[in-house]
Amino acid sequence: MRIAFIGLGAMGVPMAVNLVKAGHEVTGFDVRAAALQPLVAAGGKAATSAADAARNADLLWLMVVTGEQAEAVLFEGGAAAALPRGAIVVAACTQAPALAKKTSQRLADMGLEMLDAPVSGGVAGANAAGLTIMVSGAEATLARTRPVFEAVGKRTFDVGREAGMGSTAKMINQLLCGVHIAAAAEAMHVAERAGVSKATMHEIISVSAGNSWMWGDRGPRMMMDEPPVTSAVDIFVKDLGIVLDQGKSMRQGLPLASAAMQMFLAASGLGHGAADDSQVIRAYRALNGSQAGGPKK
Amino acid sequence: MRIAFIGLGAMGVPMAVNLVKAGHEVTGFDVRAAALQPLVAAGGKAATSAADAARNADLLWLMVVTGEQAEAVLFEGGAAAALPRGAIVVAACTQAPALAKKTSQRLADMGLEMLDAPVSGGVAGANAAGLTIMVSGAEATLARTRPVFEAVGKRTFDVGREAGMGSTAKMINQLLCGVHIAAAAEAMHVAERAGVSKATMHEIISVSAGNSWMWGDRGPRMMMDEPPVTSAVDIFVKDLGIVLDQGKSMRQGLPLASAAMQMFLAASGLGHGAADDSQVIRAYRALNGSQAGGPKK
Repeated sequence: MRIAFIGLGAMGVPMAVNLVKAGHEVTGFDVRAAALQPLVAAGGKAATSAADAARNADLLWLMVVTGEQAEAVLFEGGAAAALPRGAIVVAACTQAPALAKKTSQRLADMGLEMLDAPVSGGVAGANAAGLTIMVSGAEATLARTRPVFEAVGKRTFDVGREAGMGSTAKMINQLLCGVHIAAAAEAMHVAERAGVSKATMHEIISVSAGNSWMWGDRGPRMMMDEPPVTSAVDIFVKDLGIVLDQGKSMRQGLPLASAAMQMFLAASGLGHGAADDSQVIRAYRALNGSQAGGPKK
Repeated sequence: MRIAFIGLGAMGVPMAVNLVKAGHEVTGFDVRAAALQPLVAAGGKAATSAADAARNADLLWLMVVTGEQAEAVLFEGGAAAALPRGAIVVAACTQAPALAKKTSQRLADMGLEMLDAPVSGGVAGANAAGLTIMVSGAEATLARTRPVFEAVGKRTFDVGREAGMGSTAKMINQLLCGVHIAAAAEAMHVAERAGVSKATMHEIISVSAGNSWMWGDRGPRMMMDEPPVTSAVDIFVKDLGIVLDQGKSMRQGLPLASAAMQMFLAASGLGHGAADDSQVIRAYRALNGSQAGGPKK
């Protein structure tokens, strides 16, 4: 397939390279021209604009951060207009389901097909062609695109026929991630104030029913004062924001996601927005005091 | 060791039998006399009261449900007075840390030692001698008791020197369990209203960063209308109640545990207190409507 690949960030580069390796003809574009080098070195082509990349492509992969960026590339940037009729747009950004639906409709009006296909797995998953892809869209479009998904991901989940359903699946994952990180901080903070060793507590929970993927991953960084930043507090302000906006548009109360959001917001407001998201524990310390109930250890 | 074992319920029976198998001399007591049969059949002895069991025991294992029951057995029931000075009381119930501390002090005043040692792992763990034990108390007492713990459990975690710390560790696990069950229900409920297949969603999350032990265990029962009851909604009303009481006594706000508690309380108030705890999802349906956003599936 002739693939236009827009957005060559930390995840985009290995994904585009994996598509080249799988035999696709890949033309990349990124606002930072230097980002195109690794793709060209791997046998891909460099375009001078998103519209330039889109011309004659069978498929346009949008690996931008937000749905608003996707709209800008497609419509203001002219990529949609440059695509041949019948081409497929893969919207792989994390966006509000309603926006995915709106963009899909605009593309349909232009004779283009869209798959709402957010991914998870991060940079490690992108490097290993091990991403998880949650996709919704027309069955025939999904079938045509499956080999492309298989070149970058390990699991492709068919979530439904309507645009927005893929984004809903991703949003449900983000809801759980956000709540679990805040819950881990709440639990660690109880240990901290009660004078129970956090390291022992981490070991206990890791073999108990209270365990979560986030407890395993973020827990050790929660015990550090200045951990390396794997994903920032403000990313969850954004992602839980999408979750709660979606709840609002569906008229759906989400009490746990809402409580978790307040703690990420507070952490950001305290000046820790760029810190590792494990540092949401600082909001608990601000709220309750870190050492009142016992030594901090 | 001569062990008095009080409370031969679904977990107590296999634990007491495992102690006999490990070579200990076990005398059991339970308010339901029939509960003593399996212990006697395995080579243990039956006592006619907790005080009767306690006479001449080196160690009294309290496998009752609450800290209040433990107090009743020890003080009103006369078991503490019947124990020889220097004997050890293992309080294995799930109780408020403050109550564990108070009971420990009363026992110390009588020349007895207490280990605050709640367990987790359920009936399956008890059967397989695979329980996790979170214990706090004097180092020498813990050292003397370790072989007893090893006869019933796989992991014994030393949580600290003070009574209450073992119960705090257990309470932290219950905090995470309660929040994770409610979060799973919140997430499943979003899928339900958005018309995304819950079975597909369960599969996606199981391989994603949003995964938790509870998602894996309770998720499938959340998809059933009348699942078998493994642990009831009202058990989490009790356990999150202990968590929030502890937060209150420490003057510590616990926003996620509090939000989760409201959902378990609502589920119980709706008449589902005896239902499987996965059915906290019914409180979400009552709150937001189950099918407003799409088909229930």
